[in-house]
Amino acid sequence: MKYYLSYNQIHKMVKSLAERIIKDGFNPDVIVAIGTGGFIPARMLKTFINRTILTVGISYYDENDKPKLIPETIQWIDEVERKLSGKKILLVDEVDDSRTTLEYCLNELLKYNPKELAVMVLHNKNKEKRGKLPVPVKRYYVGEKIDDLWICYPWDAQDIDEQVKLSVSGK
Amino acid sequence: MKYYLSYNQIHKMVKSLAERIIKDGFNPDVIVAIGTGGFIPARMLKTFINRTILTVGISYYDENDKPKLIPETIQWIDEVERKLSGKKILLVDEVDDSRTTLEYCLNELLKYNPKELAVMVLHNKNKEKRGKLPVPVKRYYVGEKIDDLWICYPWDAQDIDEQVKLSVSGK
Repeated sequence: MKYYLSYNQIHKMVKSLAERIIKDGFNPDVIVAIGTGGFIPARMLKTFINRTILTVGISYYDENDKPKLIPETIQWIDEVERKLSGKKILLVDEVDDSRTTLEYCLNELLKYNPKELAVMVLHNKNKEKRGKLPVPVKRYYVGEKIDDLWICYPWDAQDIDEQVKLSVSGK
Repeated sequence: MKYYLSYNQIHKMVKSLAERIIKDGFNPDVIVAIGTGGFIPARMLKTFINRTILTVGISYYDENDKPKLIPETIQWIDEVERKLSGKKILLVDEVDDSRTTLEYCLNELLKYNPKELAVMVLHNKNKEKRGKLPVPVKRYYVGEKIDDLWICYPWDAQDIDEQVKLSVSGK
């Protein structure tokens, strides 16, 4: 079963997440977006919580689209930007599926001894998780909890008008 | 005068740009997004031209929002990713305003001796440019040429419904 979303829906979800994050008293110093799923949510978030966005990219697939045991780093934070020590970091991705990517990125970021490390995702799928959130991560912001559906994000749409029609909001 | 755009409009513009890039015979090995304006266009583009996205971030403003003479690098491509040598690179940003940012990023990327370096922007403002495109950059893809208007991108909208109403497409 497919679950279609429009850009406008997601923009509103990110706004609402930003309000919750602010109300919760979490005041990040920097936003870290997981590429490429976190690029659009992180950029939307910047409108409501204006912070520097750093990006990290990892891939679990090789050039033949075969899964790899160890993720390949597409891009990581520059040496000069490893100064995340003592900072409050908000990590952003689109979906918490098996939790493998989140666990990997969170553990990597924890090595920099941040003051605090929190996560924001648009969707958390209700399914068995292969990865787990590291203990120091106390704040986990989810836009919507959903069943294990096939989520169709607007940025993957070949035909955006069709996507909008298929989405719940219809706009 | 303000010029409002919706996400759906931009998604269509990026699709049309992708078609032009393909038709033009340019087959990039990697997409480089200029943060944070290029994040959303680059992620949209990946749907139509599926390549790895690397990001670079620069800022011309200091912590007090005063302009700086030399841009500060927010994030650059990792040492390990500097292997852009011999690759065909497509640099993506949202707008070509004074051209300063584009010139800086293009000149930096040219240092890695790419096989080819091209640029894609959503909008090119018809105004006097302070920066210029380096000579080796032959392919420059523009979604729309516009006057020197205040462009209101959807990702900056506080109220996305209002934004959509104000946009030309109205959806």
